[in-house]
Amino acid sequence: MAGNTFGQLFTITTFGESHGPAIGGVIDGCPPGVIINPEYIRHELARRRPGQSEFTTQRNEPDKVEFLSGIFENKSTGTSIGFIIRNNDTRSTDYIHLKNTFRPSHADFTYEKNNGFRDARGGGRSSARETAARVVAGAIAKAFLQQYLQIDIKAWVDSIGPVSLNKNLSEIEPDEAEFNPVRCPDEETAQQMMELIKKTAREGDTLGGTIRCLMKNIPAGLGEPVFDKFHAQLGKAMLSINAVKGFEYGEGFDAATMKGSEHNDLFTSENGQIKTQTNHSGGIQGGITNGADINFRLAFKPIATIMQLQPSVDRTGKKTIIEPKGRHDVTVLPRAVPIVEAMAALVTADFVLRQLPNHLLRNEIKA
Amino acid sequence: MAGNTFGQLFTITTFGESHGPAIGGVIDGCPPGVIINPEYIRHELARRRPGQSEFTTQRNEPDKVEFLSGIFENKSTGTSIGFIIRNNDTRSTDYIHLKNTFRPSHADFTYEKNNGFRDARGGGRSSARETAARVVAGAIAKAFLQQYLQIDIKAWVDSIGPVSLNKNLSEIEPDEAEFNPVRCPDEETAQQMMELIKKTAREGDTLGGTIRCLMKNIPAGLGEPVFDKFHAQLGKAMLSINAVKGFEYGEGFDAATMKGSEHNDLFTSENGQIKTQTNHSGGIQGGITNGADINFRLAFKPIATIMQLQPSVDRTGKKTIIEPKGRHDVTVLPRAVPIVEAMAALVTADFVLRQLPNHLLRNEIKA
Amino acid sequence: MAGNTFGQLFTITTFGESHGPAIGGVIDGCPPGVIINPEYIRHELARRRPGQSEFTTQRNEPDKVEFLSGIFENKSTGTSIGFIIRNNDTRSTDYIHLKNTFRPSHADFTYEKNNGFRDARGGGRSSARETAARVVAGAIAKAFLQQYLQIDIKAWVDSIGPVSLNKNLSEIEPDEAEFNPVRCPDEETAQQMMELIKKTAREGDTLGGTIRCLMKNIPAGLGEPVFDKFHAQLGKAMLSINAVKGFEYGEGFDAATMKGSEHNDLFTSENGQIKTQTNHSGGIQGGITNGADINFRLAFKPIATIMQLQPSVDRTGKKTIIEPKGRHDVTVLPRAVPIVEAMAALVTADFVLRQLPNHLLRNEIKA
Amino acid sequence: MAGNTFGQLFTITTFGESHGPAIGGVIDGCPPGVIINPEYIRHELARRRPGQSEFTTQRNEPDKVEFLSGIFENKSTGTSIGFIIRNNDTRSTDYIHLKNTFRPSHADFTYEKNNGFRDARGGGRSSARETAARVVAGAIAKAFLQQYLQIDIKAWVDSIGPVSLNKNLSEIEPDEAEFNPVRCPDEETAQQMMELIKKTAREGDTLGGTIRCLMKNIPAGLGEPVFDKFHAQLGKAMLSINAVKGFEYGEGFDAATMKGSEHNDLFTSENGQIKTQTNHSGGIQGGITNGADINFRLAFKPIATIMQLQPSVDRTGKKTIIEPKGRHDVTVLPRAVPIVEAMAALVTADFVLRQLPNHLLRNEIKA
Repeated sequence: MAGNTFGQLFTITTFGESHGPAIGGVIDGCPPGVIINPEYIRHELARRRPGQSEFTTQRNEPDKVEFLSGIFENKSTGTSIGFIIRNNDTRSTDYIHLKNTFRPSHADFTYEKNNGFRDARGGGRSSARETAARVVAGAIAKAFLQQYLQIDIKAWVDSIGPVSLNKNLSEIEPDEAEFNPVRCPDEETAQQMMELIKKTAREGDTLGGTIRCLMKNIPAGLGEPVFDKFHAQLGKAMLSINAVKGFEYGEGFDAATMKGSEHNDLFTSENGQIKTQTNHSGGIQGGITNGADINFRLAFKPIATIMQLQPSVDRTGKKTIIEPKGRHDVTVLPRAVPIVEAMAALVTADFVLRQLPNHLLRNEIKA
Repeated sequence: MAGNTFGQLFTITTFGESHGPAIGGVIDGCPPGVIINPEYIRHELARRRPGQSEFTTQRNEPDKVEFLSGIFENKSTGTSIGFIIRNNDTRSTDYIHLKNTFRPSHADFTYEKNNGFRDARGGGRSSARETAARVVAGAIAKAFLQQYLQIDIKAWVDSIGPVSLNKNLSEIEPDEAEFNPVRCPDEETAQQMMELIKKTAREGDTLGGTIRCLMKNIPAGLGEPVFDKFHAQLGKAMLSINAVKGFEYGEGFDAATMKGSEHNDLFTSENGQIKTQTNHSGGIQGGITNGADINFRLAFKPIATIMQLQPSVDRTGKKTIIEPKGRHDVTVLPRAVPIVEAMAALVTADFVLRQLPNHLLRNEIKA
Repeated sequence: MAGNTFGQLFTITTFGESHGPAIGGVIDGCPPGVIINPEYIRHELARRRPGQSEFTTQRNEPDKVEFLSGIFENKSTGTSIGFIIRNNDTRSTDYIHLKNTFRPSHADFTYEKNNGFRDARGGGRSSARETAARVVAGAIAKAFLQQYLQIDIKAWVDSIGPVSLNKNLSEIEPDEAEFNPVRCPDEETAQQMMELIKKTAREGDTLGGTIRCLMKNIPAGLGEPVFDKFHAQLGKAMLSINAVKGFEYGEGFDAATMKGSEHNDLFTSENGQIKTQTNHSGGIQGGITNGADINFRLAFKPIATIMQLQPSVDRTGKKTIIEPKGRHDVTVLPRAVPIVEAMAALVTADFVLRQLPNHLLRNEIKA
Repeated sequence: MAGNTFGQLFTITTFGESHGPAIGGVIDGCPPGVIINPEYIRHELARRRPGQSEFTTQRNEPDKVEFLSGIFENKSTGTSIGFIIRNNDTRSTDYIHLKNTFRPSHADFTYEKNNGFRDARGGGRSSARETAARVVAGAIAKAFLQQYLQIDIKAWVDSIGPVSLNKNLSEIEPDEAEFNPVRCPDEETAQQMMELIKKTAREGDTLGGTIRCLMKNIPAGLGEPVFDKFHAQLGKAMLSINAVKGFEYGEGFDAATMKGSEHNDLFTSENGQIKTQTNHSGGIQGGITNGADINFRLAFKPIATIMQLQPSVDRTGKKTIIEPKGRHDVTVLPRAVPIVEAMAALVTADFVLRQLPNHLLRNEIKA
């Protein structure tokens, strides 16, 4: 059960179960000199935190991160950054009745098949709690990208169940997503989403949805032409987020029904700068960024834990009934927004470091 | 410009440009004893080959693979397998007029931004020719999976432009895809696709589409719960194929509008075997395979090279017109089918090798 | 400043500076079910700890490890193991006078050249304190190897300065190294070493030396024939320990003056088991273990911090004098013994996991 | 049987057995614009080639490299460089009598233990023929380092058996090593070595020896402070060369008997440049290069194939006698010199690429 590291040059390695003493991670490869404001990290974690509003789960985790290395006087020192977040509220009794049962569409069954062993106290590494470590690492990656290259990464909730934000990218102001608890940058749609969530909660059911993300000021030239295409690594990062079932960028699945003459982005020159007139490609051509905005979209399945009786089987194959207990989210979408941004930032930071040697060798040493 | 290796334990490293002497690769980590029949490899390459029918490009490349190591008397020896495919038909003059121009929605511009240098003779590493090496490696991975674990991987064309195969997975017989040149396992839909391709060819335009893939007999337990989820690595593999704009598995984007009570796959026990009654999850839960069939779908954009005049700019930003030359495919879809299978096999072979130590330590040494 | 991860399948990633809040690490890939006794870990850390005796430094660090994940009821769960060790005694004032100065044969100058930034409070990642995290990870790897394969790894001090243990391997009982503070498994030689250390301390000088290590019950077949030879990875692991200047295995440098007819290990068969009559090869042939004991030897340079005035320069190149402060070890040798064992165990555990798929595919699936 | 790739950013992946159609490799990560002269590559290969003189083996392999990609008009294009070298002289009949026998101190036994299968036609991947691919890749790495950073890497034979070059580093002119067939940069010692080789050949025996290597103009700052120390990676590279039994750098094993006050390299400032007065450290401090020359030394065991009858056992454990056949080298030392340089260049090129992002982020973007 390995695979707890992501990235090649700017890497994050995570550890921790929801019912152990702490979760945390090690960020390796972050350049020195990045300003890391504790208040900023707290804010990013708060965006992921359960219990932010009545629309997210009530489990009250403080998510206080403690940095143990690699940061001195609020600046990265260039060394590996170790951090932990204590688990204060580990009500493992909530799970004891599930010890020998496989919950439908959870990782219980597959985790046991993979590992030969399941931690009876909770979801183990499959718990969404693990994503808090990604948010910390991603916040640092975002800070690096913002401070060194003015890169801006913003995600928002595009749909919850059937309620969808029907606006073009150019009409959306991503920052407005933070104005409401469902993180949809349109007040009216947000209201409809919240009503749907309340109604679905009463039914004891759950909802999926989609998240979009916009990345601005990405320099041209990031990505590799064969296996490590920018969007391939981005797609892997997104698909590694719990509950994600699909990824598309640019026109995505719609591109399948367009003709070449419609989809092609014609080049033009503006003030000596070569750019495309349209952006059907979503900022990436041949796996390499072209300097235009990158946009992508993710599908999340509905949460598997529902407040209804569900038939299942136990470890021996005997029929049993799963009874709902505790308080649970109706949808993960609003809380997933900072995780999407975090993973997008980690992918980009890694490619920035990978591309720099080429850049330097071209511009400097040879000269 | 690195990133020419894919995989961790069962790996492929590729090289070669469409206009150099040869392309090829090195397969590392293939276990000894896999039967590798030359006729089988030839057949797989022929499926990808241009010029198979009037519905694919006419460039006549023989694609004869020469194995240089790692295979003895048609069996893998356990050592790294080197292979090359000579480029016989490298009409680089077709490209000379494009030397200083950026073709719309090709990798010309981004490649140059990444590498600081573009091979005037063709697409360099962005050329689709590179995928022939993937097909060779994937064929060996498929043979390994088939011979050791009876795993079966089949892909087919699900739609071309607006013409779509409207059948449930259970009604589709994937093998029938090979009965027609567009690789759609439904004769009637295939006819419509071929007519659409002919019509679009007359218009000098191109088409996108979607491919589906079904993976059978995948053992439960493959994948890791955090970053290296099975579908995350699968998604990366698919998104690394030229022209792919989206990836989804199981219910995919449709899952976003389903409720938890609809999407959950309830467990049942059949002859002592625990399985799910439905397969909305697409064979993967929490990033780990559950033993059910894996199914996924890919969106391809239309080919960027169209037989129409297109305005563009040259390297200095000066306006220019791209004139079409040569003969080109209207759609990549039929030829992409074996590439999809190849990448799916490489991902699976890698996870099989990663999972085996856990399996062995559980079942054998401890006992 | 990356490179904080070691291993491919059984990995350790470390973090922490001697003058920050804590050091620690993440162990990934440890199989489930390994018994990890807290008392055993404490004991291994105590062997590395400063202040064990008058022959090691007096800095009093308790080195209390806290495991945060991956262990439940004293057994590994198969998930990544996060751990931290708090730094209680971080007298950074000891270092302030060195802030702008480069100490001779320390990493001050090179660290700054690499990172562009030096943590004025201490040695940063170059501090030997980092090795405590290796000892924790290595102790877990040793437990895995011992419990699953009865592998036994023991190191000892073979020489300090000119005082050397002149015994054949077969005459040495490695366990006896723990009977005296210098960890030399010969009482008389140990006495001479202790006297030399006391004398050298009075002179304000320091000593180097050599460590030997013996690995028993290593299964045949570990290692890869080309770049990842068993002894190549072992050598890298050893050379990554602070102050190590040389590595040899088997006959080592002595092999250079032997003839083939002297050095060759002739095969014989004993009770149906093929083995070699001699072990000049040191248990490794062609980079792969042959089942015989592995033995290797390391050279450590003398500690750079001496209790004498030393001329140096500051950051601007101006001449300055380094005045000794604080209390320091005369030699690292006794404390390095558990670090050598730890790294040897990490290398071996990694190769065991790498070799298992081959083993399983041969013995089980094919059958 | 994996591990056929070396390096992280500047990588080489090799394939090929001595008795298959060809050997070769893929070099990934080489920056564009490096001048790669075919005559230069031929020359480097000729240095490794058997049959150079009466002092090396007579097997007449032409070793003609064919580059298949990544080089255009004698310059690297930035893409992966594929190359092959045909095996023309594969007298596998020489080996057939050894099919069921284990030759003493060869990899026959361990290779079979690792892989479960041994290629009866020769040494498989353990054959020294594999190192020809290293020489090609290393020649390109040397060209990159020389052209971009004026780095100069030279190795020579320091001893063969008991005949040793007793000169200080400062008295040696490495280029003179190429003036005689044993590659010892001292005419008188070279004569003695040649006489010893002739005498040992008559006895049917073989010789080991040592090689030294000097690396000039290495920029300060290469290497990482923890696991990826410059000399740790260098040591791994050297220990991966066939027959190497020991590695030391700087004072090496001699450092173990020096005192701190003797071994420390005091800093001084010369024309505004900070440097050390002595170079006991061998150009590396704390795992990071300090700008001084790097020097290291390797021990090679005597060749295992001797022209004498040797008792052994076959696969079933039955006693047998190995009879010498064919023509074989008495010592590998002269031919190993270019391999040592090649591996040293590959390590350095990798660290140069790893260090450049730090360099750039410090000097350019922040400004």
